[in-house]
Amino acid sequence: MNWEQWFADRVAEREAAGLRRILKPRGAGDPVIDLAGNDYLGLSTHPDVRRAAADAALTWGAGAGASRLVTGTLELHDALERELAAFTGWPAALAFSTGYHANLSVVAALVGKGDLVVSDAHVHASLIDAVRLSRADVAVARHNDAADVARILAANPGRRTLVLVESIYSVLGDAAPLAELAALAEQHGALLVVDEAHGVGVVGEGGRGLVHAAGLAGHPHVVLTVTLSKAMGAQGGVLLGPASFREHLVNAARPFIFDTGLAPASTAGALASLRHLVGHPDLPGVIRTRVDALAAALAVEAPAGAVLSVPMPSPQAALAAQAACLEEGVRVACFRPPSVPDGVSRLRITTNAGVPDADWAHATDVVTRASKEHR
Amino acid sequence: MNWEQWFADRVAEREAAGLRRILKPRGAGDPVIDLAGNDYLGLSTHPDVRRAAADAALTWGAGAGASRLVTGTLELHDALERELAAFTGWPAALAFSTGYHANLSVVAALVGKGDLVVSDAHVHASLIDAVRLSRADVAVARHNDAADVARILAANPGRRTLVLVESIYSVLGDAAPLAELAALAEQHGALLVVDEAHGVGVVGEGGRGLVHAAGLAGHPHVVLTVTLSKAMGAQGGVLLGPASFREHLVNAARPFIFDTGLAPASTAGALASLRHLVGHPDLPGVIRTRVDALAAALAVEAPAGAVLSVPMPSPQAALAAQAACLEEGVRVACFRPPSVPDGVSRLRITTNAGVPDADWAHATDVVTRASKEHR
Ligand SMILES: Cc1ncc(COP(=O)(O)O)c(C=O)c1O
Ligand SMILES: Cc1ncc(COP(=O)(O)O)c(C=O)c1O
Repeated sequence: MNWEQWFADRVAEREAAGLRRILKPRGAGDPVIDLAGNDYLGLSTHPDVRRAAADAALTWGAGAGASRLVTGTLELHDALERELAAFTGWPAALAFSTGYHANLSVVAALVGKGDLVVSDAHVHASLIDAVRLSRADVAVARHNDAADVARILAANPGRRTLVLVESIYSVLGDAAPLAELAALAEQHGALLVVDEAHGVGVVGEGGRGLVHAAGLAGHPHVVLTVTLSKAMGAQGGVLLGPASFREHLVNAARPFIFDTGLAPASTAGALASLRHLVGHPDLPGVIRTRVDALAAALAVEAPAGAVLSVPMPSPQAALAAQAACLEEGVRVACFRPPSVPDGVSRLRITTNAGVPDADWAHATDVVTRASKEHR
Repeated sequence: MNWEQWFADRVAEREAAGLRRILKPRGAGDPVIDLAGNDYLGLSTHPDVRRAAADAALTWGAGAGASRLVTGTLELHDALERELAAFTGWPAALAFSTGYHANLSVVAALVGKGDLVVSDAHVHASLIDAVRLSRADVAVARHNDAADVARILAANPGRRTLVLVESIYSVLGDAAPLAELAALAEQHGALLVVDEAHGVGVVGEGGRGLVHAAGLAGHPHVVLTVTLSKAMGAQGGVLLGPASFREHLVNAARPFIFDTGLAPASTAGALASLRHLVGHPDLPGVIRTRVDALAAALAVEAPAGAVLSVPMPSPQAALAAQAACLEEGVRVACFRPPSVPDGVSRLRITTNAGVPDADWAHATDVVTRASKEHR
């Protein structure tokens, strides 16, 4: 077999289907206004956060040097874990190199062959991969349909069961019915795993997330994932839950045990973002104000979090609107099949509280015109 | 079900089996000489590397802000990929957030249900997880036994097949018979995936790794993983191969597509390490001299790379020797069942070219005495 040919054929197939993706490196001084990334509070480039990340690299070096179990656990990790647990209202936290590692870990360390995972139809790729890794049976529940989850749980009494959801879904931007789901988990003895990747820093009191807002912090049938790569502006992921949950993960989660610890600069950057958020509890309110106004201008429903999903009539129209925005200095993301759960092409516009007011006004104007023109 | 109790029970089980692991956070000024981590060249704390990581955090911010496919590809990623490809002798490279992500990607994006993976019995957890994720059939070959690999390949003609090995094995420190394995891959149309986590920066001309040393750089039936978290002193992983391989991964590797790009400081730290290595081609020679002398002192066989594996008569003896070293300011790692492939407890001592000569002499003395006393 000619492997190079095989790779080239796969790429050609994608090209023919109009799905080939190309990486476009950006410069540090890129003047485009970014409404495509997930840096919802603009903290990745906040002076305090940059400084903290830089200082950590100078003080600790560029890497953790080993697995967290060997010599790769730094006092920095400890500080981040303690402060994030206190902020979100959980007894314990454990930091991973990526949010992806955190999600792989929480499923594969908790369930195995013969156990059950009830997964919302829209959960993130990392959770889908996690289920596969765990070898548990999976039942996919209709998106945001608690009744469907209830039906599946009732049909599987006595099985060790996880229920997987996101608090704010990453593509459509809608919120999960967390209170209902936690009640169901409790009733059936299941554990609700909530991925707060797009919730923490964005919603809830001072950005404490949707689980906190729903009064579920510390709930005995809930644990959560927080990514450090989005509103926290850095890299990494954290799992939050009871102290015994953390201890179990330290001993059982392969993507934790067999991985180098999170780099000092990323850890310190996330910690500085967290401290900034603690000191500026009104910051997530800027997202709220902006996203509500933008949703009104675009005549779409205001989303639960920072992600605005604008359905477009066709993949071509979505691409054209995206190009029109970029032409005027605003980058938005464009999702087309097969990356959308329902086959509808859309613009994905993220609200960034860090964009200066004048730029935000310009971006709103550009996005509104472009989307009107192509819808 | 009471989940907190279930977690606590799992931890208690490990405790009872003498296997409970505890994280011990270290400070930035930790005076212990580290022969336990994988920072083989001491580059994670080299002044140029610290400075480059810090400067990147100041210039670019603490995070990449989005998936590499959206706005998370930085010119820094591009530079690292190009320079690492040139250094190791491959046409193309793609950087991931962790070495773990790179390994998950290379398997799951290349084979699937019905395909075959021939895996050396000692490969890393990330490759084992990768195979599970891919859903391919797996045949485990006896460790470093090319004849066994040949037998499996011959018994499975016409199947799309990957052969997974490490160049230098992470626990035992021995080297794979790469030339033989590449010839077998070619003969049977398979692709040899070599994890160079413990090879690049350590062995081969100027630290170009074992694949390069074996004359296999650019071989049409070989691709490789390089981690940025070990000799490169930072965080992340890179896959190297033909340009079409890189393109295929960009379009198909879920742990690449659905993950935030590698943080600026980690990327720049790895790049600075690479440049330092290019400018100091004799640096890996320091590892060689030190590891050979230490192996002689310990009366064990000199290993292929930087990892010395010292068999101990019992788990207790291994722990006692480790504690004796720490008492005198030297940290070594201790592997006990079930973390050893062959059930033999051992000290794992890593050579670090960055430790000053006097400290190295002290560490050699301490380790030699402690291991003699407990063997
Ligand atoms: C919902 C969700 N979970 C997990 C992840 C993975 O997080 P990370 O990028 O930190 O690996 C992402 C995005 O990348 C996400 O959108
Ligand atoms: C052989 C091998 N491959 C892959 C990895 C994973 O690399 P990383 O720590 O960068 O995720 C490791 C160690 O962590 C390793 O020893």
